[in-house]
Amino acid sequence: MSFQALLDKTVDKNDSLLCIGLDPASGRLPAHIKSGDALSEFNKQIIDQTYELVCAYKPNTAFYEAQGVAGITQLKQTCDYIRQTGVPLIVDAKRGDIGSTNEGYAAFIFDYLGADAVTLSPYLGREALQTFLGRRDKGIIILCRTSNPGAGEFQDAELKSGQKLYELVASRVKDEWNSRGNCLLVVGATYPDELGQLRQELGQEMTFLVPGIGAQGGDLRATLKAGLNSRARGLVINSGRDIIYAGDGPDFAQKARAAAQRLRQEINKYREGGD
Amino acid sequence: MSFQALLDKTVDKNDSLLCIGLDPASGRLPAHIKSGDALSEFNKQIIDQTYELVCAYKPNTAFYEAQGVAGITQLKQTCDYIRQTGVPLIVDAKRGDIGSTNEGYAAFIFDYLGADAVTLSPYLGREALQTFLGRRDKGIIILCRTSNPGAGEFQDAELKSGQKLYELVASRVKDEWNSRGNCLLVVGATYPDELGQLRQELGQEMTFLVPGIGAQGGDLRATLKAGLNSRARGLVINSGRDIIYAGDGPDFAQKARAAAQRLRQEINKYREGGD
Repeated sequence: MSFQALLDKTVDKNDSLLCIGLDPASGRLPAHIKSGDALSEFNKQIIDQTYELVCAYKPNTAFYEAQGVAGITQLKQTCDYIRQTGVPLIVDAKRGDIGSTNEGYAAFIFDYLGADAVTLSPYLGREALQTFLGRRDKGIIILCRTSNPGAGEFQDAELKSGQKLYELVASRVKDEWNSRGNCLLVVGATYPDELGQLRQELGQEMTFLVPGIGAQGGDLRATLKAGLNSRARGLVINSGRDIIYAGDGPDFAQKARAAAQRLRQEINKYREGGD
Repeated sequence: MSFQALLDKTVDKNDSLLCIGLDPASGRLPAHIKSGDALSEFNKQIIDQTYELVCAYKPNTAFYEAQGVAGITQLKQTCDYIRQTGVPLIVDAKRGDIGSTNEGYAAFIFDYLGADAVTLSPYLGREALQTFLGRRDKGIIILCRTSNPGAGEFQDAELKSGQKLYELVASRVKDEWNSRGNCLLVVGATYPDELGQLRQELGQEMTFLVPGIGAQGGDLRATLKAGLNSRARGLVINSGRDIIYAGDGPDFAQKARAAAQRLRQEINKYREGGD
């Protein structure tokens, strides 16, 4: 099954466009979680409470690498646990190297961690990323317009063609990289105008992974109005800190569940035409 | 000590601009290396034979991530061993995320692995990379013109200003990102014309990390003619496969030493004005 088909199936089943960013920082975990595997124990409890509310989970490798081997062990535990739920697993890695080197990253992300999709940087071009793009069954999610305040430094560079760089990336991915239908784009919720414009330019089929709601300041209403496709989907709305840190006591996972329910509901209100 | 000072000291001490890319792939190791820690054992023997011949070592994280936790364990062992030699350690990671996420990567690369320098992607802009750029004592090596055949897809994008994208990256790094004097640029040996032009435009102070000699087809003479600065340095010439796979028997490390000696000597011939 393609990543898009797996995603669509889960969007239907859970009636959700919500993706939870499983990005735990050791300094922010509830005080009662003290085991040696605190990151994966924390994630496990959140997954138990939310797997029927989401369309994907997205652990970012940085939060695990921060703890070295112990962290990678817990990333693997987390990924194994997510796979048992059947919810699509996006590994947010933002990798990208020359062709032969990418084989190592693909082995890590797809074969070792068992990810259904990965985020990648476009800077080295399509030829370098063939190792990833050739994985027909995997979602290849290319950074296009990122959610950070300074994203525009290069992404907004104005080209002779009249496009900005992020528009060139988007059009190349749609027209050339996506020959197997396995590409998605990252577009931050902090830039709803750009998101809306990309939805116009790229049509109804492209799915956008959208970080930046919540702690980063992205506006949910503007994001959904701008980015939903004609079937009221086409977006994977990521939220991390607002959900995983919704509580910090023994009931943190229940609090996370409540936060996920609220956000799913708010998203669905706009999907159903609410304003 | 700054990374540049550490690098200069090692260039002087070992009379070398050669960097060895410690990128072992498990399928290519000598048959007699069969221990559970084959990657780090292989690296250790190569380091023992070459640490007086090089100005840096550069392990690429992809080759270790390919083996999951066992690989990261060996990356850590390799980095620890390199640090004992006093030779600068460049971790080739090509990372780059939003600001708060980069704290995890910086913790992994600088604090856990103990790297002296790291390679990063510029796509998210300076603001996102402040966590790295603020590490005054570390070398921050930004991808500019990469060595892969398809590097030009975006890097050669023509801007309204007349620059190409990689030239904009180079000028921004020199004029704005490098306020602490800790930035370097990646420029592939497969593009000596671009390297020469960047040396002209950026002046004598910028150091370039140059991959692509050897297996990737980069021309050593053209690279040195184009890229050396007025003090016959300013380049870190990386070679991986041609050195680490110079032999495949019990004497593989001695063969690697001989290959490193030859390449160092050839580099120094051009540094001394040879043609």
